[in-house]
Amino acid sequence: MKIPEILMVETVHQPGSLARVLQVIAEAGLIIDHLNAVRRERGRTLWEITLEMDEATDRSLYQRIDDLPNARFMGKSDRVFERHRGGKLRFSASMAINTQQVLRDIYTPGVARVCLAIRDDPSLAREYTSLDRTVAVVTNGTAVLGLGNIGALAGLPVMEGKAALFAALAGLNAVPILLEETDPARCVEVICSIAASFGAIQLEDIAAPACFDIEAALRERLDKPVLHDDQHGTAVVVLAALMNATARVGRDLSACSIGQVGLGAAGIGIARLLGRAGVTHLRGSDLNPLAVQRFESMGGRGGSLQELMQECDVIVATTGVRALIDPRWVRPGQVILALSNPDAEIDPVQALEAGAAFAADGKGINNVLGFPGLFKGALQARAAKFTDAMLLAAAHSIAAQATPGELVPDPLDPRVHAAVAEAVRLAALADED
Amino acid sequence: MKIPEILMVETVHQPGSLARVLQVIAEAGLIIDHLNAVRRERGRTLWEITLEMDEATDRSLYQRIDDLPNARFMGKSDRVFERHRGGKLRFSASMAINTQQVLRDIYTPGVARVCLAIRDDPSLAREYTSLDRTVAVVTNGTAVLGLGNIGALAGLPVMEGKAALFAALAGLNAVPILLEETDPARCVEVICSIAASFGAIQLEDIAAPACFDIEAALRERLDKPVLHDDQHGTAVVVLAALMNATARVGRDLSACSIGQVGLGAAGIGIARLLGRAGVTHLRGSDLNPLAVQRFESMGGRGGSLQELMQECDVIVATTGVRALIDPRWVRPGQVILALSNPDAEIDPVQALEAGAAFAADGKGINNVLGFPGLFKGALQARAAKFTDAMLLAAAHSIAAQATPGELVPDPLDPRVHAAVAEAVRLAALADED
Repeated sequence: MKIPEILMVETVHQPGSLARVLQVIAEAGLIIDHLNAVRRERGRTLWEITLEMDEATDRSLYQRIDDLPNARFMGKSDRVFERHRGGKLRFSASMAINTQQVLRDIYTPGVARVCLAIRDDPSLAREYTSLDRTVAVVTNGTAVLGLGNIGALAGLPVMEGKAALFAALAGLNAVPILLEETDPARCVEVICSIAASFGAIQLEDIAAPACFDIEAALRERLDKPVLHDDQHGTAVVVLAALMNATARVGRDLSACSIGQVGLGAAGIGIARLLGRAGVTHLRGSDLNPLAVQRFESMGGRGGSLQELMQECDVIVATTGVRALIDPRWVRPGQVILALSNPDAEIDPVQALEAGAAFAADGKGINNVLGFPGLFKGALQARAAKFTDAMLLAAAHSIAAQATPGELVPDPLDPRVHAAVAEAVRLAALADED
Repeated sequence: MKIPEILMVETVHQPGSLARVLQVIAEAGLIIDHLNAVRRERGRTLWEITLEMDEATDRSLYQRIDDLPNARFMGKSDRVFERHRGGKLRFSASMAINTQQVLRDIYTPGVARVCLAIRDDPSLAREYTSLDRTVAVVTNGTAVLGLGNIGALAGLPVMEGKAALFAALAGLNAVPILLEETDPARCVEVICSIAASFGAIQLEDIAAPACFDIEAALRERLDKPVLHDDQHGTAVVVLAALMNATARVGRDLSACSIGQVGLGAAGIGIARLLGRAGVTHLRGSDLNPLAVQRFESMGGRGGSLQELMQECDVIVATTGVRALIDPRWVRPGQVILALSNPDAEIDPVQALEAGAAFAADGKGINNVLGFPGLFKGALQARAAKFTDAMLLAAAHSIAAQATPGELVPDPLDPRVHAAVAEAVRLAALADED
């Protein structure tokens, strides 16, 4: 997997200095991900240049930059690490605790009254504790990002990132829970033993097929919302993007035949939600026959990648495999979402050149658009579970908020998440009727 | 157990109006815990009068207040409940997440670099996540305050109270974890399965004797600080108070014979720490022979309450039993800490009248003085466990910070906790040498 590296390069403030640096980078076959002027003084500019590299990337690039007449390679930036230093979460008390009266109300002896009230009526816990804003973000570290089974502890920065986003975008208290268990039944037991601590549970970066069994068991046993984000959160955002992509080329999504390439957690989640959204022609491909079997048990039809490319109006790819799709396989008029990050299954420009009516990669299709509003809405409705109606409502809300020309709206706009939450809340309440 | 009730009483703004209300309360045998003027307008004052009541308290008191010429009983205040509404904890991100650059640094794709760094060197998790500020506050709800086994959910307001205090007083992230397990071995398994999520673990309100086994097993299995607050946190604060109490009457604590009345979690913790503080003459009493056996296995000597009262220079009572100690049993010159809340084993005034050299109840001896600094110091030192040296350092720091005339300092002063944390940190580092 490619991950971003930030080079620090100083250039002389003259025409062509930066261009020559970028030319050297281009010759190394690397794409500029981000460029940022950190400071400019005494005729020199310090640039942060973000590139996505993997272990195969030739690091002699650094020397070649340094060899340029008007540039110096200054090393790598530790900006990403600095932003993680000391962690990304801060807790605070909901009120100043600065008098004996407050202390005696929120702690002993006053708190005893609240405890007894909850003992006598457990539903009061939702009024007088933080439960209604608290989400566990649970991983066992078996499928962290595209990095594979790196263990729960190494997954903590992702869980904290999600928790920071829950706080910033939806005002929720999300607690990273690292589960040092891989056996699905044991995972379920441990999560059930601590589930009373949380208003809802998000499963995260748990490998397929264990993720399916764990989620199903928890949904069965707990009377609170449980969602495996890699399946359903991703599916909600992809469905929103697909609605807008097909609309853009004048098609009705539910009338399209759709090929889901890659039937891991994300692919299965997308296929499942497309079925609920009314899509009836669903084909799927995966190298793992058990994954195809799972897909077919849901009512889809398996096939080879080439078959899907030949037959389907819409292709959604979530394989993690760079350049998997040969441009020659593209069917004229096809809609293609090649979602693997950082490297798509097919470059959208190539897909369009090959005749696709619409093509996009996963760069802008971020699951951050889904989970904050999904959980906020479910908690506000005090829903006992996530229903398909809630997921579909979220997808419709996200799709409707996209600005013209974009497939999805800006994930950093809190209004987007407020609208998603409200749509989910209303869908949850309607479900109860 | 008595818990505080807040009566709302309106009085006419004339001399004697309030006095008559208080007289009626006095005649009902109740003590004023707190009195607060909420508002004064049009010649009337609305008072919040806090009284500690139990189920046996005669509620006809309300009518008798209402029958007074210049007073009206307006009902009960829900101030305590209002202060709990929506919960007492708020999470936030450590930085504004308002640009794509920040999003891509703290979440995908940038976060992958931090994950890989931790995979390759797990110790980096303490640099680049919140672990070093994160404490689990774990209960199974089997001994919440003096309320008994009310279940984990009903204990949540206490856990959130502790978490709010951790945040306000020491800047730590404390996560309430409700464990729906009572079997000690199962509790240990579940806690170990999720322990990677936290930098340290506080056990809370878990009934004896299970609490002893759970703590011992966790200390054995985990390489991070574990502390059962009811035992050791309480012991630290009581030891600090005892140091000052004995000094006040010109005695050296370690040369005193000490009688520990009540050998539950708190009593055992106090006796254990007194032994570590150099006390060699330790006697203990409890109605439960297994508790006495545990105490004797630690090197103490069991006995009856009367024997302890006759023999010991210092009496510490933690039984939860009101008026357990007959004033006639008090030995002249004795130091008595009767710590049960809200009703002490002996009223300090009566104890002094009976000849005690010093007597106090548990009203001001709050375990809030201990746990924030204990955990902050342990985390800052990255200690693998709490040692006795750390507990003793905390007790000495607390004792030294008491203002003249007080046994312990103000628990709401953050400087107190900073000093305790620093003492604990230094003790932890010295232990390592």
